Amino acid sequence: MLDAAREEFSARGYEKTSVRGIAKSAGVDSALVHHYFGTKEQVFEAAVEGAFAPVLAARNTVLDAPLDEVGERMTRMIIGLWENPATRAPLLAIVRSAVNNETAAGVFRRLVASQLLRRIAGQIGRPDAELRAELAAAQLVGVAMIRYVIKVEPLASADPEQIIRRLAPVVQGHLTGD
Amino acid sequence: MLDAAREEFSARGYEKTSVRGIAKSAGVDSALVHHYFGTKEQVFEAAVEGAFAPVLAARNTVLDAPLDEVGERMTRMIIGLWENPATRAPLLAIVRSAVNNETAAGVFRRLVASQLLRRIAGQIGRPDAELRAELAAAQLVGVAMIRYVIKVEPLASADPEQIIRRLAPVVQGHLTGD
Repeated sequence: MLDAAREEFSARGYEKTSVRGIAKSAGVDSALVHHYFGTKEQVFEAAVEGAFAPVLAARNTVLDAPLDEVGERMTRMIIGLWENPATRAPLLAIVRSAVNNETAAGVFRRLVASQLLRRIAGQIGRPDAELRAELAAAQLVGVAMIRYVIKVEPLASADPEQIIRRLAPVVQGHLTGD
Repeated sequence: MLDAAREEFSARGYEKTSVRGIAKSAGVDSALVHHYFGTKEQVFEAAVEGAFAPVLAARNTVLDAPLDEVGERMTRMIIGLWENPATRAPLLAIVRSAVNNETAAGVFRRLVASQLLRRIAGQIGRPDAELRAELAAAQLVGVAMIRYVIKVEPLASADPEQIIRRLAPVVQGHLTGD
């Protein structure tokens, strides 16, 4: 059911997805979806949290890094997740939903901000660390938008290692620079 | 009619907006909208190009800048457009539509890539100038996403001048750094 939910949300976005459509594509009754997850919002949260699991799993490679390698690890994690077709689809669904729907934006804020950026900020340990982590994340979110979502050339076809080489020092600069 | 179109596309996104809905909100007949603009895609292109006019108007402050000030001018232009409520709404409509719809993404690619980034790249005049311009734009697009679209704190409430101070050297670095 969650796979079906992710596919529906990914293809249609939050607004246009219905519990009925999810149930149909999973080959079950709507009542069963409601029984397990509750409202559409709750199905969405469960689907996004599931989609977000690889990010949370990859998070430790960033959180365990020495402070002067956090920028490269964070860059490599995000580009790696977008390069992997299995994680790209759910990330696309998250982005599409979050820009169009306040419920989805709330899930994004809670998961990305609290579960990822605040942890990285904690590791930086400066008074402005959260703002630093968000500006670093902004660089990576923007690259994801231009390369993977809107697909503007030449960035869309550039070698991922070249992108990582260019972005890692910028991300590191945001996190720990003067 | 274009104002009505922008409002409809902005509130609903491309997919859910209809020529009928635009005509209704403009107080005219659908046939008149079709007569002036053609298909929904053509109405959208006209609306986006109109919404994009302030960006193209502001573009010269970037294109006329000395090479070592292009980063700050570009940052100031983009943050300025998002800070201004009159230009924020159409920008939001462009972003919402572009992430959800291939037609809208195509308009975005044509306008942003050709009309803005390629011009800036021409000014930089290096073999990798387009990639540089896109990585610089990615930093600004990502900040717009996190601050104005998804509204993650503390970035959402940070002082605009503080943001410009932090971003300008990063954008400049992408454009002309080693």
